[in-house]
Amino acid sequence: MHRKTKSFVVGVDLGGTKILAAVFDHKLRILAREKKSTRPEPGARAVIDRVRECVNETLAAAAVPHPAVAAVGVGVPGMVDTERGIVRIAPNLFWKEVPCAKLLGRSLHIPVVVVNDVQAGTLAVQRLGAGRKLRDFVCMFIGTGIGGGLVLRGESYRGAGGMGGEVGHMVVVARDGPRCGCGNRGCLEAVASRGAIVRRVISAMEKGRKSVVHDLCDGDTSRVRSRILAEAYREGDKLVREVIHDACEYLGIGAANLINVLNPQAVILGGGLIEALGGTMLPRIAKAARAHVIGASADRVRILDSGLGDDAGILGSGLAALEARGDARLAA
Amino acid sequence: MHRKTKSFVVGVDLGGTKILAAVFDHKLRILAREKKSTRPEPGARAVIDRVRECVNETLAAAAVPHPAVAAVGVGVPGMVDTERGIVRIAPNLFWKEVPCAKLLGRSLHIPVVVVNDVQAGTLAVQRLGAGRKLRDFVCMFIGTGIGGGLVLRGESYRGAGGMGGEVGHMVVVARDGPRCGCGNRGCLEAVASRGAIVRRVISAMEKGRKSVVHDLCDGDTSRVRSRILAEAYREGDKLVREVIHDACEYLGIGAANLINVLNPQAVILGGGLIEALGGTMLPRIAKAARAHVIGASADRVRILDSGLGDDAGILGSGLAALEARGDARLAA
Repeated sequence: MHRKTKSFVVGVDLGGTKILAAVFDHKLRILAREKKSTRPEPGARAVIDRVRECVNETLAAAAVPHPAVAAVGVGVPGMVDTERGIVRIAPNLFWKEVPCAKLLGRSLHIPVVVVNDVQAGTLAVQRLGAGRKLRDFVCMFIGTGIGGGLVLRGESYRGAGGMGGEVGHMVVVARDGPRCGCGNRGCLEAVASRGAIVRRVISAMEKGRKSVVHDLCDGDTSRVRSRILAEAYREGDKLVREVIHDACEYLGIGAANLINVLNPQAVILGGGLIEALGGTMLPRIAKAARAHVIGASADRVRILDSGLGDDAGILGSGLAALEARGDARLAA
Repeated sequence: MHRKTKSFVVGVDLGGTKILAAVFDHKLRILAREKKSTRPEPGARAVIDRVRECVNETLAAAAVPHPAVAAVGVGVPGMVDTERGIVRIAPNLFWKEVPCAKLLGRSLHIPVVVVNDVQAGTLAVQRLGAGRKLRDFVCMFIGTGIGGGLVLRGESYRGAGGMGGEVGHMVVVARDGPRCGCGNRGCLEAVASRGAIVRRVISAMEKGRKSVVHDLCDGDTSRVRSRILAEAYREGDKLVREVIHDACEYLGIGAANLINVLNPQAVILGGGLIEALGGTMLPRIAKAARAHVIGASADRVRILDSGLGDDAGILGSGLAALEARGDARLAA
């Protein structure tokens, strides 16, 4: 492969609500990006059509011809068989056993690599983000849910069965904690994800608590996302501040649990909520973590922002695609 | 070194209440063992004198002459600088910066290696116990407190600063959990260690609850240890059963947290409480773990007994001493 002919890579972050795509040059600089809503209801083929459109539009915007693209990496929120290019199960997309690489590759005429979105994000943090110079760290991506990735001794670690990293499902409120999407009670995700925060804010508003969130979402609470929470927080909204501060306490406890067990060099936070509110949340999370670390010495607690914002997903998917294709030149 | 001249090793498990010592042959078979109470109050030198006596008596009982011993390994519940042979801090012994290897080695004329007791126990589980054929597992030792050790990709893992493995200080009852010895609230150790169980049983008895524990300890509750709990449990004591079942629930949640984050092949339990009550507790712990593992598939949850009982400490200290001395012949 000659650099001139295959110098580019496309990364796709395929979420339950939106599709992000970007084209990168050989130095992993973003040349163009595109965004579409996912609308998963009509089924996998319709979603894959939209992913293809998104990729094509991104390439057009960057004026990169298809034959110059080494690979397209697609990060999916679910269990993925990267070798066979199959999404085993992705609950937010309502997907089961979808041959994503084949379906998308056929229409694009570019090799497609399917990866787990959180693993992709962790890879991006390791190669390009706050984990660049670290050997041992844990990522926590806080959005609708809370995903996680471990890098131990310089290598990604997913455990014996490849199922590790589920930091959002550490139980921190045992026995009578709030119900989590996974069916259990008291998971970190059930008390500290953006989803949990939004649910608490809405439920308090329904019980009569005042909040600027009502105006910010024009009365349609289904539209409340990290951006609206951040705006309400900045405006000093009491309810939102209370709920976010509470979440920070739990996130600090979650981070402390990981530090007590794994003693990493850092816990690195990313995802939509941190992108929107990291500046406010990080110091609070670090303070709570410090209070819950055994033999608390400040130097054992380093809570960092991923430094990649919303790009962790697309960057990681692109990187993972290059690695899976054995193209170390671009990925290096 | 010729096998005939240095074929033996001594392992010492130096706890806050008792000193255990044993001499092993080159196949790590126990030839003799000895036990003394620690009585740490008079200070480090007095304790080290008792360790020396314990080692000497063990060697005498096994008819092994001092020059035939390759090394003495001493497992200590605290922070240890193995290279320099110093115990940095061991709260249960009231030790700070004690040059244990030098003090003990001088009087014994055998090289002494000082190791952390939980790391030693984990090494024993890996080489000789339930972890023998496993590449990825987590140990939880349940006694006065709860210690832990990780073996990942076949190697012991203590994290960037060597301080990892503190599974007992995962917070599982966030915010308003019971106070832990470490100063925090809601640690696993504060709700599920033998210490926590005993405290709850005694406190309930003081509030008027009936229990056979009162008779089993002749009214002296300071004598309640795992053995008495096990006897009360077997006699069907309601209070003890209730408290132990509760602890199993929490231990299962702790195990599930480790499984969700690390996805090991097994979580291996050891320590005094498991030695005494493992048969009863393990199935309950496994059931609770299974209920709290995400994407719960039975095969992700394997809760095993260490298989070494109270010997994990002495075996591990002996093994660690041989490894530290580079004597792979005996340790293999």
